[in-house]
Amino acid sequence: MSGIITVVAPVNIAVIKYWGKRDEELIIPLNDSVSATLDTNVMCAKTSVCVSPDFTNNEIWLNGKKESFTSPRLQNCLREIKLRAVAERSVDDVFLSWKIHVCSENNFPTAAGLASSAAGYACLVTALAKLYKIKSDVSSIARLGSGSACRSVYGGFVHWHAGVKADGSDSVATQIVGSSHWPQMRALILVVGDDRKKVSSTKGMKISKETSELLQYRIEKCVPRRTEEICEAIKNKDFSKFAEITMKDSNQFHAICLDSYPPFAYMTATSLKIIDFVHKYNEICGEPRVAYTFDAGPNACLYLLEEEVSKVLGLIQYLFPTTISDSFIKGLDTKATPASEEVLQNLSLQPEAKDSVKYVIYTKVGDGPTEVTDGSSLLNDAGWPVNPVIE
Amino acid sequence: MSGIITVVAPVNIAVIKYWGKRDEELIIPLNDSVSATLDTNVMCAKTSVCVSPDFTNNEIWLNGKKESFTSPRLQNCLREIKLRAVAERSVDDVFLSWKIHVCSENNFPTAAGLASSAAGYACLVTALAKLYKIKSDVSSIARLGSGSACRSVYGGFVHWHAGVKADGSDSVATQIVGSSHWPQMRALILVVGDDRKKVSSTKGMKISKETSELLQYRIEKCVPRRTEEICEAIKNKDFSKFAEITMKDSNQFHAICLDSYPPFAYMTATSLKIIDFVHKYNEICGEPRVAYTFDAGPNACLYLLEEEVSKVLGLIQYLFPTTISDSFIKGLDTKATPASEEVLQNLSLQPEAKDSVKYVIYTKVGDGPTEVTDGSSLLNDAGWPVNPVIE
Repeated sequence: MSGIITVVAPVNIAVIKYWGKRDEELIIPLNDSVSATLDTNVMCAKTSVCVSPDFTNNEIWLNGKKESFTSPRLQNCLREIKLRAVAERSVDDVFLSWKIHVCSENNFPTAAGLASSAAGYACLVTALAKLYKIKSDVSSIARLGSGSACRSVYGGFVHWHAGVKADGSDSVATQIVGSSHWPQMRALILVVGDDRKKVSSTKGMKISKETSELLQYRIEKCVPRRTEEICEAIKNKDFSKFAEITMKDSNQFHAICLDSYPPFAYMTATSLKIIDFVHKYNEICGEPRVAYTFDAGPNACLYLLEEEVSKVLGLIQYLFPTTISDSFIKGLDTKATPASEEVLQNLSLQPEAKDSVKYVIYTKVGDGPTEVTDGSSLLNDAGWPVNPVIE
Repeated sequence: MSGIITVVAPVNIAVIKYWGKRDEELIIPLNDSVSATLDTNVMCAKTSVCVSPDFTNNEIWLNGKKESFTSPRLQNCLREIKLRAVAERSVDDVFLSWKIHVCSENNFPTAAGLASSAAGYACLVTALAKLYKIKSDVSSIARLGSGSACRSVYGGFVHWHAGVKADGSDSVATQIVGSSHWPQMRALILVVGDDRKKVSSTKGMKISKETSELLQYRIEKCVPRRTEEICEAIKNKDFSKFAEITMKDSNQFHAICLDSYPPFAYMTATSLKIIDFVHKYNEICGEPRVAYTFDAGPNACLYLLEEEVSKVLGLIQYLFPTTISDSFIKGLDTKATPASEEVLQNLSLQPEAKDSVKYVIYTKVGDGPTEVTDGSSLLNDAGWPVNPVIE
């Protein structure tokens, strides 16, 4: 057994959306995308890896449960890491020949549609890179696990460049600014209940690429200009501009889903109600103070500055009443300010049915993957799961 | 009092959608559109008009209730009709100077979002044209009342040409084929319950024109090709092609609404369920047998050939159960065939909550406006409403 590496890695929520692959196998996108990386203290994936001459097989445990190591995406990541180690001569051949144990878990529900695979693969690839002492950028390797995982390799605000090369070697993420650049930026994730069977992102992207006439225009005309503008807005800490582009790009992504054939929709009536609320709130404020964005599911991510958080949470509690009031707001410490009669009158929106929003996660922009050395490894000294699920 | 004219006029449902105005005042569209005119025996507007030296004011009654005659759209229609009469020297100056009484009603709920203004203005303008003995095409005058009204001036399948002139004189409708060309064509209108406050078409079009980046591409690239292709499909009675273009264009229109800023959505969860059902049904059939289209509201219009009607109605009754089973299917005579276990298994869709679809109107492609001479005028011999609403 030769040293256990444990890493935590963040989720990221895109503000310019990735939708459509130029190469299915290598997971090369049709367009650039931009995201914020969220604080690992609130939501994270955690992965421990180790190699040992004693191991007879590569093995992986996800959330305590043993899974097959044969997934092509997992295999691709491990192969590329090892090739990089060979190229960098970072470890010796004997070390490279040993089998590996991987143990990974999320501190948030995998099924909630909260970009768990992005955090998971960023975590795995960063842990492997440390294990094999790789010095170069590994975002393109994380990309092979799950496209948007390449953005979770960096903290702050991140730009995933689509790239032009056939092998995807220039389809990498770069940091726009670090997590301390815009310290007031916050995110509220509204987890929306939904029991519909949804179209997976992989399948949805394929249908859109093959059938949406509008997608080509989005890729060629809309995304390049928006990407440039939002990078500027982030550098200048221009919240109005940032918010407008974020909302427009979320809407356009969902428009593309409807323009696909057959069409599919990820947003529910509750998602649309959140959109209405944000636009009305911004109208009352006279400028954008909150921005929504929706991934391939009904959950909203609201970006806003710290000074707005209490007021907005008060309105959310009014509009989306809950039956679990004690733990409705998770994450960072805060207090909701009860909404004033005046604001409620101006909003003129009726509360939704109870538990339409199941709970809210309050978080902020944070750093990229970091090694954990506090002894909380998921593998014991022999390289086996500390907390295996007994089945 | 000088002769009462009574006309009935049809609704029409577009298969290539009109969305966005080049000129707000003159109601000139940004793109061509195509529709089918539906049988006036099932759904129609009915309008009686007359002039008399005894009338002191122009007056109008809608569904029995007196309304103001000052609406600019109404004024525009009357003014243009009179100008046309002058140009054609069809009636003398004294006749033109007399005041007018108009009485109009729909035989279907105005609020149901079923293109009532299209039928209403087509009916009014046709009645006025007959009253003033106008011989030339009046579709461009109906257009001044409500854009899509110009399509209701003709029967069968109709093409509204956007035109290029500033005065809108070439923004007219023409008939592609008459109602007897494709006699098997049927329509099922699924009236969907919805209590949301929706964005009016006029407002929605304006927002889309000003903010949707994708709309311009739709107008320039998508609609011209689709219009050409669907006109061909209609002439060739190619149902597969007709259905595919119809569905894609409905989806694209709703995609544009989502791409607008702020975005708006007309379809509800029930609308999306109808879409899913149609795609699954077509997949089972191995080819498109049913096409859906949605206007600026949640109601679906399904186009299908007569031979499919009973089967599809059976499935609709299963998927959208009702509490008013005796009058659930209105319109033309038909019988729903109870869905077979095998088809239901293949569909693998669960029934919606009761009354998600309130009722279904079964109709077919029909003729344009026609004069009624059976004595069922809405005005009595003195030119006043036969059935005024007492308030």
